[in-house]
Order: sequence, then structure tokens, then C-alpha cells
Amino acid sequence: MSVVSNIVLSSRVRRSPYFAATQRYGCKAYSVYNHMYLPLYYESPEADYWHLVNGVTLWDVAVERQVEIAGPDAARLVQRLSPRDLSSCAVGQCKYVMMTDARGGIVNDPVLLKLAEDRFWLSLADSDVLLWAKGIALAGGYEVEVFEPDVSPLQLQGPLAATVGEALFGAALNDLKYFRFAEFDLDGMPLIVSRTGWSGERGYEIYLQNGADGDRLWETIMEAGRPHGIAPATPSAMRRIEGGLLSYGADMTLENNPYEMNLGRLVDLEQEADFIGKAALARIAQDGVRRCLAGLTIEGGREAAAGLERAAVVLDGQSIGRVTSVTYSPRLEQTIALALVAAEHSAEGTALTVQPEGQPEGQPGTSVRNARVSPLPFVSKKTV
Amino acid sequence: MSVVSNIVLSSRVRRSPYFAATQRYGCKAYSVYNHMYLPLYYESPEADYWHLVNGVTLWDVAVERQVEIAGPDAARLVQRLSPRDLSSCAVGQCKYVMMTDARGGIVNDPVLLKLAEDRFWLSLADSDVLLWAKGIALAGGYEVEVFEPDVSPLQLQGPLAATVGEALFGAALNDLKYFRFAEFDLDGMPLIVSRTGWSGERGYEIYLQNGADGDRLWETIMEAGRPHGIAPATPSAMRRIEGGLLSYGADMTLENNPYEMNLGRLVDLEQEADFIGKAALARIAQDGVRRCLAGLTIEGGREAAAGLERAAVVLDGQSIGRVTSVTYSPRLEQTIALALVAAEHSAEGTALTVQPEGQPEGQPGTSVRNARVSPLPFVSKKTV
Repeated sequence: MSVVSNIVLSSRVRRSPYFAATQRYGCKAYSVYNHMYLPLYYESPEADYWHLVNGVTLWDVAVERQVEIAGPDAARLVQRLSPRDLSSCAVGQCKYVMMTDARGGIVNDPVLLKLAEDRFWLSLADSDVLLWAKGIALAGGYEVEVFEPDVSPLQLQGPLAATVGEALFGAALNDLKYFRFAEFDLDGMPLIVSRTGWSGERGYEIYLQNGADGDRLWETIMEAGRPHGIAPATPSAMRRIEGGLLSYGADMTLENNPYEMNLGRLVDLEQEADFIGKAALARIAQDGVRRCLAGLTIEGGREAAAGLERAAVVLDGQSIGRVTSVTYSPRLEQTIALALVAAEHSAEGTALTVQPEGQPEGQPGTSVRNARVSPLPFVSKKTV
Repeated sequence: MSVVSNIVLSSRVRRSPYFAATQRYGCKAYSVYNHMYLPLYYESPEADYWHLVNGVTLWDVAVERQVEIAGPDAARLVQRLSPRDLSSCAVGQCKYVMMTDARGGIVNDPVLLKLAEDRFWLSLADSDVLLWAKGIALAGGYEVEVFEPDVSPLQLQGPLAATVGEALFGAALNDLKYFRFAEFDLDGMPLIVSRTGWSGERGYEIYLQNGADGDRLWETIMEAGRPHGIAPATPSAMRRIEGGLLSYGADMTLENNPYEMNLGRLVDLEQEADFIGKAALARIAQDGVRRCLAGLTIEGGREAAAGLERAAVVLDGQSIGRVTSVTYSPRLEQTIALALVAAEHSAEGTALTVQPEGQPEGQPGTSVRNARVSPLPFVSKKTV
């Protein structure tokens, strides 16, 4: 990551219900995600990371906008939108799903929450699934309502998240299994809490259902967390790349399919339902993919990651792929990356080089770095 | 506009083919628009504005992503997506269109380019119309291809745009009528040039069709413009608010309909085609709107605009609306705004107050400012 400029607040980009709190707590950088400001770091990306992996952190992820699909045809539409077989999904369950277009390209990778037999939330990555789902519902004649409800998630993440969660919600929270959610009331604020998150650490997502309570919810959680050293933080590129978690827009786009992301397990071709992309994905499953996601360890210290965004991945002077996400891992003391590479060169241990975008390929220079294909994740999940 | 933080370049957000050029030419701030970095200003918003209104400027607006709709059903799908009657639209013509959902809510307000009887581009504001159009096409069974081509527009805007345009493309460019486009070749780069823009000044949009040529096209235009004092600039909030031009996401969203934007002229209810939202818009046309866009002049000098983003519009102690865009107009030497206000209080000359978001309404304080409803535009178009 390299700082290039000032961000200018405009009224075109939405502010989260926690925006004022993030300003008050010293958020130093923002990006834009789902047409809303997304906090990027407080102390520094690395200091925030240590709070996350050693303690407990609170993130404003209101940018995870929800698409609510409700009505008699809701279950049928949600299944139409997702290659994953949802027939056994229970009320109270979350599912990580790929949404695909007719060519099998990835539209989004939300977490699905089944609120009732006829009511669902898609908790989104950065694309307007609201328009996609509305378009399919309208032209396909589904009897549903599709809309963006007033719902703004926070993430409470880190090894002490369960301790803070119990202080807030009582021991009942401990009964919540991984990828399950339940309703809780906190000082009169009706919340949905799921045992999910984008950190690879133990954690929860807390879905506020009334934006006007944003500041109060933030402070209530901060107060409960203070004895446990809670820190404000943000989705950590360092931790999520360690964990092999994908970022839509960086590691995958509409140009990629789930098989390229090694996520064939999220495509259930055997199910009866004719989800969007089924025929295309069946062909891809049969033919195999030409490129796929791979982990890379890259030589060089802390400074190696800078400049390697979208770097070319080179083997024998030929470009065989591209870095999609890169970071220094403070815990591994190594630069690590996710890359989309030619499938035939994705085997663990393959020696490669990476070189910055724009630099002529195959022309070794000072910023060419040796790399090696590594198994994913770099650091396993610690969600229990 | 208020600077709040640094923006951090991430690989999640796309870079335009002109990104390196904008860096080289000293762009100081970016936002994100259609998942791509959007340059915000170079010298300063005001200095850039004076270059625009007095001379000629070049803008990287590659964020105006194109959705291409091509195939036997392309014309039928494009008409389905737009309330404007396109039956008389000729090849080579551009049309400013509202796209609406089933409730008449605005999905986007692109410029449509009719490239052939069966091939169109929608040159987008900030929402994923690609997903909307693909969803309707897929579920509606239209025989079309819908995709984002490798097309990246620049805008050449300002009173000297025609002079620079002629230097680049020859006298033939002068034959191009307002909202028409033609194909040109520039040093082997096939370009589409339209006489359109988002400035209210004379100008062109230049559609590059090969991203790899981004830097070369930028420099070619800069070189032709140098004798005429060309300056790099960006979409100017100052100039577009003066011109009453709308910004999707700020002045209107899916929650607004074209009638609220005083753009009923873009809704052709009499046409035979059953565009999306027709029934809802017919009802709205009959019932009238409860709120609508209005221009406001606001007392106070250069500093008044800061802090008035999303300010409440107040009459007799009651909130009757909200500022949607606000700026200081260097030319009018006055703070001006667009606002969404109760229709019954939108008459020209109505005296109101505006007060910053978050401040209790009806409690006069130091930042409450007097305002008055003004006719739009504040400054008329100078596109000839």
C-alpha cells in the first residue's frame, strides 16, 4: 500500500452510521466500498494488525451493505443466484456463497444469512448486487421484494472477541456456533450477531438495524471492550492475506470463476436447481482451469511489498500471471501474496520471480524478487 | 469539500489507463467511482475551475465505464432500460437518459451512444449498470451480449476545446453537432469523439478503445493543447453545480425518480414500449411529487460551503429538505447548492435557512445560514 494523496469528502459517497466515531477514534485513511467510505487504518496497518491478532478490535464495516430478499419466491431466487446448494440451509445459518453470472464469472462473494424461510440477507462485497438481484427478480417474474435495508454491520474480531462478546450479550453468545447467527437486544437496540468475520481470528459481526443508533452502539461496545484493551481497527489486509481470504475486486472479478479461486466446493453441480452459470461452470469443471489462485512467499524484508501490487509473476522470462494482493506479514516476517497464475505452474514450491507492473517482463532489475508458490492459507484460521 | 485523510492505493480499486499521467501531472486527490480511482483536483479545485471556464482542460474520466449492449435484441433491451423514447435515435447520436427500476427509482443517468442499429454504449455514472443490464437481459431472455468493453473516456472541456479539437482531428470536428459523435483516427489510435461533457462549457468526450494507449493519447492531446494553455483538470463540482448538472449518488439515488429531478422531459409515457418503471412513473406523473430538486443561493462568503454538505434545509424551524451538493461559485462570488426540498416550498425566491448535518434543527446557531430558492441553472450552458 502506498499513500498517494488526500481523500476529499464528497456528498456523493455515503457515510456509515459509525463515520463520526471512526473520525473521533483517529481513523487516518479511507477508501470507498459499495459507494460508502471504508476506514483503512488507525494507528498504522501493522499496529492495528497486532491489536487484532493479540487482543480484540472493533471495525466499521457498514460498507458490507445488505441486500434483503423477502417474499414467497425468496428462497427460489436466492438459490437461482448462488451455485452453492442451499436446500439444507437452516434459519439462523450463514453461508459463504459465490454469486455467478451466466458465464460462471463471479458477481460477488457475500455471506448469506437465512433470517426466515422466506427472508434472506446477502452481506456484500463491493459490487451492486442490489441491481443484479433486482434485475433477475424483475425480468424473471419472482414474487419478492429486493431492497437495501437500514443495516450496518460492525466486526468484533480477535482472540478476546468472545470475552467482550460475553460481556455485551451474556453467556448465551457462547452457544453460537461458527457461521450461525442469533438476535440479541443491547440496551434496547435490536441486533443480529453472527459468528463470522473477515479476519481468520475468533470474531463476530454485529448487524445494527437502525442507523441512528450507530454512535451509541459503537460506544457501548468500546466501553465493554475497554477492560480488555479493545482497539478500533479495520479489515486487515495483512491478516486476511495470511488467512488466504479473498478480496472481491482484487483477487477476483467478473472475469474469474470459482474454480480459478480453488472454490469449486462452493459450486454444487449435482443439485436440481438451475442456478445462474450452471452450464458454464459444468463445462469449466470438466475442462479444468488454465489459471488459478496461488499463494506466494516473496523474498526481501518489510519494504518488498511496496511496489508489487499487480506485479507480474514471471517464470523463465515469461509472464505467467499477476499478483492480486500483497502484504508484509509481521508474524511470518515475510512478504506474502495472492496471485493468479497459470495452473500448470501453480504447484507448491515452484520457484518464480515477481516484478513491478510496467517494468518490462523478463528484464531482471533491482526490483525483481524471487518468490515461491506456498500452500494456502499462510496462517490457519483461529476462529474457535 | 473537506480534506479528511490520506487515500491509500489498493489493488482492489482499478486504475485508469491515464492514472500514471494524472500522477505525473500532479493530481493531488482522488475519489473512487465505478471501482476506479477518479482524479479530484490538480492545482486546487478553484484554479482548475478557472482553467476550465477561461481556457481548455483535459480530464481523466475513465471512471465513466461503458456498458456495451450488442446483438439482435440490443435496441429492444436499451429501450426497456430507459424511459426516454429512443425510437428516433440515430446512429451517431448521444442521448442523456435516466434508467429506472420498477418503482421509477433512478438506477443511473448515463449518456447513451448509438454505435449501430444493434450496438450501444451506456456511458455510466457511479453504479453497476453492467449487473443491472446483464440481469434483465439474462432473466428476460434477450438475445444480446452485455459487457464492459476496453473503453476509457477523456473529456476535453472549455471555451478553447474546439480549437484544440481541430488541431487534433482537423476541421471535420467542427461539423460534429451537440450530442453527436463520430469516429476519428489519431496517430493510429481509433477513437470515438462525442460533442458532450459534464461541464456546461464547449467540449468533447474522447473514447479510447485500447487501454494500453492511455499514456500516448493523454500526451498527444496535451501536446496539441500546450499552445492554447491546456491544463489537466477534473470534473468540476463548481462548474457542474453552476450548470445545474446532477451527480448520481449525491443529488439523486435509487430513492429518487426523474420527476423529483425536474427531468420529466426524459420520461416518455406515451410511447408504445413498456420500459421498466413505466407504470410507477405514470402514477407519479399523475399524483405529482412531494419533493423536488431546487437551486439555493446561500449567504456567506467563500467559507460558507464547507460544512454544508447534506445540510438540513429549514423553514419556520421545520426541516423541509436537504442539501445534496454545495460549492462556492468563484464566478458568481456566492455559495450555491442543489437541494431536495418539499415541492410546496420550492418556488423561486422562497427564503429558507440551511444548517449543518447533526446540528439540532430549528436551533439557530453560528452556522445557520440564510438561503433562497434560485432558478436553475445558476449559469447557463456555453456549449456552442
